Amino acid sequence: MPDTEFQNSAFGFVMEIKNIGDLIRFSAEKMQKVPLFDSPNYFCDLYCLKPGQDQRVHTHSESDKIYFVLRGRGVFHVGGEDRELASGETVIARPGQDHGVKNGSAEDLVLLVFMTPRP
Amino acid sequence: MPDTEFQNSAFGFVMEIKNIGDLIRFSAEKMQKVPLFDSPNYFCDLYCLKPGQDQRVHTHSESDKIYFVLRGRGVFHVGGEDRELASGETVIARPGQDHGVKNGSAEDLVLLVFMTPRP
Repeated sequence: MPDTEFQNSAFGFVMEIKNIGDLIRFSAEKMQKVPLFDSPNYFCDLYCLKPGQDQRVHTHSESDKIYFVLRGRGVFHVGGEDRELASGETVIARPGQDHGVKNGSAEDLVLLVFMTPRP
Repeated sequence: MPDTEFQNSAFGFVMEIKNIGDLIRFSAEKMQKVPLFDSPNYFCDLYCLKPGQDQRVHTHSESDKIYFVLRGRGVFHVGGEDRELASGETVIARPGQDHGVKNGSAEDLVLLVFMTPRP
């Protein structure tokens, strides 16, 4: 797996570039969360779910979380509802809304997730 | 163009779902910025650039801006450097770094952009 920041540093570049094709990783054990960028104010991560894996339903009292489906399809639970979303679809959980996602399909699921502020 | 929030409201759904295929729009005049989600703390938008269009280089003293390439390829300028990025690549401009993007290709360019805090 190339380490883009190391490569940039070695060549004297300052741009923080990531290629998700290099970073996506799955585990048979559970959903993998891959950090892309963050600050004290937010997280930007990839979530990688094999078929059958999930992020359990939970709630953040202060934070917005945006899920963007990059590959595959998953069943999203937000505010007591469930909807299946596919690549190119996005959904937000506002502060206080319970939320989670399950890969009920036969294909891998990859999500881009923004969360702010950090809980 | 379906209005997802109206449909949801009409059917009594609460989930805020958007399909970028329904929202992408281009103008011959200039880059189109399509709002997806926001709060007082952030913007999450689509940027849609026809060949030759750009977002001029500018700087925000306090904000992070993350560009994620959904379709096409563009030349990104961050912190004095230029790099061409394609679908599946992402780059961040940290506070104080000059940044912009130009579609120098022959294909349309679509970006997912997250900016926090709002300038």
